[in-house]
Amino acid sequence: MITIHGMTDSGNCYKPRLLAALLEIPFRHNEVSFLDGGTRDPAFLAKTPNGKVPLLELEDGRTLPESNAILCYLAEGSRFVPADRFARAQMMSWLFFEQYSHEPHVAVRRSLVVYPQLAASATPERMAATLAGGRKALAVMEARLAVAHWLVDDAPTLADIALYAYTHLAPEGGFDLAETPGIARWLARVAALPRHRPLDWTPAG
Amino acid sequence: MITIHGMTDSGNCYKPRLLAALLEIPFRHNEVSFLDGGTRDPAFLAKTPNGKVPLLELEDGRTLPESNAILCYLAEGSRFVPADRFARAQMMSWLFFEQYSHEPHVAVRRSLVVYPQLAASATPERMAATLAGGRKALAVMEARLAVAHWLVDDAPTLADIALYAYTHLAPEGGFDLAETPGIARWLARVAALPRHRPLDWTPAG
Repeated sequence: MITIHGMTDSGNCYKPRLLAALLEIPFRHNEVSFLDGGTRDPAFLAKTPNGKVPLLELEDGRTLPESNAILCYLAEGSRFVPADRFARAQMMSWLFFEQYSHEPHVAVRRSLVVYPQLAASATPERMAATLAGGRKALAVMEARLAVAHWLVDDAPTLADIALYAYTHLAPEGGFDLAETPGIARWLARVAALPRHRPLDWTPAG
Repeated sequence: MITIHGMTDSGNCYKPRLLAALLEIPFRHNEVSFLDGGTRDPAFLAKTPNGKVPLLELEDGRTLPESNAILCYLAEGSRFVPADRFARAQMMSWLFFEQYSHEPHVAVRRSLVVYPQLAASATPERMAATLAGGRKALAVMEARLAVAHWLVDDAPTLADIALYAYTHLAPEGGFDLAETPGIARWLARVAALPRHRPLDWTPAG
């Protein structure tokens, strides 16, 4: 069975758990957190030199870092990857947008708010910069979701799963989703997918 | 014919040009820069709401943002995408690593050094943070390239093309590649690929 090493409360780590739930892929969850030094432990760094979670570990011990690459690996050939070449490329665009333009603002601002361990980093300048950057990213999503049900074509893809992870937590970071009604409707659509599980879900056993 | 909108001096914009050269894909280059306001021009924003280059435009007018998604689109089915599922996932891991852990430090530090327009942003704190972050990213690459010729398996992939773009410019940002001899050898290996073209190359006409 595969193992997903991750921190339950992290949106990046939630992505592969949510996908595995939606696709009914069995996996073992192993809690590893940056808050208690788990990601800097030598045994963990031996598995992945960049020291980040989530980390996928196959049954034979091979490891794969990067949340969105794990999604691509687990979903290959599934209904969450479009068959059309251009649609597949659009999905990839959203995945890179998520890591470059969305996560560093929307997710980071939430972490500065919710983790007391990061309070010293929550300077007024940083809070203002992540608010502005996050609003810009949400506006890019809203431009699409105001007029469409899903980010790519007319069905859910990895783009929706990846961007759901931190967008549904954006209010914890001080983002008001009443300003982006298209996003709010889309969040409800993702949450209504069959076998959807919440952030704090991990498999039994 | 496809059009690649981009800023010649940007590593992100160099990626699809370099790939097109290697694969002999004809394209038109259209210079669009963030330095002169080109990426904030309403006509450009109508093509791509996030206002970033590079932007791929197909002959029928459809557009695709995000440098690494453009690479995935243009290289599909080519020798730069591994046939093996796990190797393909490792390639994706490096592409996401490039955008999250490498570019925001290695590329940003170089831009703060080389563009006088950004001098006000080059605070001592920012220069120190991007130096530390860039060194960490280069160390992750070195861990692989000290013992291997290519980032994934034993042949060049999109991972090498994407990471070459800003790594070969890292000395302009104050990174000393003598500290990472595996990277230095790998850069020469990428530069020696048949039909490799330099950063400032754009197609004639």
